[in-house]
Amino acid sequence: MNKSQLIDAITHQKSFLSIGLDPDLDKLPEGISKDAKGVLAFCKKIIEHTAPYCCSYKLNTAFFEVLGPEGMHVFNELVQYIPNSHFVIADAKRGDIGNTSRMYAQTFFETYHCDGLTVSPYMGSDSLKPFLEFKDKYTIVLGLTSNEGAQDFELQNLENQTKVYQYVMKTVASWGTPQNVMFVIGATQETLQKEIRSHYPEHFFLVPGVGAQGGSLEATCQNMLTKDFGILIASSRDILYADSGPEFYLKSAEKVKAISQNMWQLYSELF
Amino acid sequence: MNKSQLIDAITHQKSFLSIGLDPDLDKLPEGISKDAKGVLAFCKKIIEHTAPYCCSYKLNTAFFEVLGPEGMHVFNELVQYIPNSHFVIADAKRGDIGNTSRMYAQTFFETYHCDGLTVSPYMGSDSLKPFLEFKDKYTIVLGLTSNEGAQDFELQNLENQTKVYQYVMKTVASWGTPQNVMFVIGATQETLQKEIRSHYPEHFFLVPGVGAQGGSLEATCQNMLTKDFGILIASSRDILYADSGPEFYLKSAEKVKAISQNMWQLYSELF
Repeated sequence: MNKSQLIDAITHQKSFLSIGLDPDLDKLPEGISKDAKGVLAFCKKIIEHTAPYCCSYKLNTAFFEVLGPEGMHVFNELVQYIPNSHFVIADAKRGDIGNTSRMYAQTFFETYHCDGLTVSPYMGSDSLKPFLEFKDKYTIVLGLTSNEGAQDFELQNLENQTKVYQYVMKTVASWGTPQNVMFVIGATQETLQKEIRSHYPEHFFLVPGVGAQGGSLEATCQNMLTKDFGILIASSRDILYADSGPEFYLKSAEKVKAISQNMWQLYSELF
Repeated sequence: MNKSQLIDAITHQKSFLSIGLDPDLDKLPEGISKDAKGVLAFCKKIIEHTAPYCCSYKLNTAFFEVLGPEGMHVFNELVQYIPNSHFVIADAKRGDIGNTSRMYAQTFFETYHCDGLTVSPYMGSDSLKPFLEFKDKYTIVLGLTSNEGAQDFELQNLENQTKVYQYVMKTVASWGTPQNVMFVIGATQETLQKEIRSHYPEHFFLVPGVGAQGGSLEATCQNMLTKDFGILIASSRDILYADSGPEFYLKSAEKVKAISQNMWQLYSELF
């Protein structure tokens, strides 16, 4: 899916919400077995009932890998189960020397047919460029993340007074285009979002951290929405575990509907 | 495996070589099918014939993941096939927010029973600490990598005149101990290795980049070996693809034997 198709998907779905699939065995609702089979059934139910109200799913590879090889069968089946109309992100935070990054790009863009993949920039150019060679795919690079640890390295000052994350974003942006590079910007980084947007008016940002992590949907929208949307808000735990009963998916769908209506309202007020 | 067990393994094997298993379908020798089954057969032959002459194997997850779910079955089978006497590294470069890093730690330390796991430090403290909670396991953090891209971010100067990688190493070292933290230091970073060792006399370093990437075994040993060894030299392509004939493993074993004899000689001269 390319940028204009992503914008079309958002417009069609009236939502720029990406539902995070981080299926935690300890949190699965009653009636769902705590194994790979249960995870598959759980996620399918969530997708089936929430797809009408969102534009994207973000599968967190860790929660599938932890199930052993069986987990990647589930991952594969879910990617195929998600309607083609939706933007599929593998949230994998990969990145390695060139020949290895090439394998990761093939893994998620070709073997699993995902539309976007999160990657870590630490190792620099040759660790990112193999991802950028794929047409109509998004390389989603960690910029300023939502977690507390963002202050440890991302927010350190370089000698030229730019922060590490600013320098990373500026450098990475020069290797690609707004058509193949997105950045991860945490919803918890409210005070910096507006400035970040001003430097990258054309880029999409993947914004986790709304909900369980404490970020504000309203502030994020006000700070970073553009006429072409320009953000995908990721939310997971608040949606997946909205209810622990046997009809958990109804509450999840309700929650998704409410979030999407709220974000669409915010968009409508701004543009 | 803990630090003293690792030192014992090296002493027993007379080698601090970790063989990188990065099985590339395009480079498999004749007679080996270009699929998951072929990769399994190929790696088993390599392990069988090289285990007497090395102390460790480093499985690069990308090369297994690219095969789809089947690839992780192969990964799993190989981890089990490697003798218990050898230190098993999952070279996965993972790292995410706390609850996700916990899943990655479980994946590689519990589901797959690896001894060490490479992780990326970009996201800071909460992305690394879940790995450090595992007893007798090594969290192998990217410090200064072997690739060209190392200069893009790792070698940038912070305002206090330390480089990014120096600050990362200093900070990460304070979260753990030489018993549970290793650093990745590229063999190609010859001019900086001695200084790095001087700051971390007790830590093990995982050193890739000898061979195909151009790093020198001799220089790395002279710069970073300690009486307790303190380094694991990783080499992959030079060993795996030493010969393309049906008895490829004989040439690989020969190569491993030669490298290990060479490193043991260098160690003996120094200590």
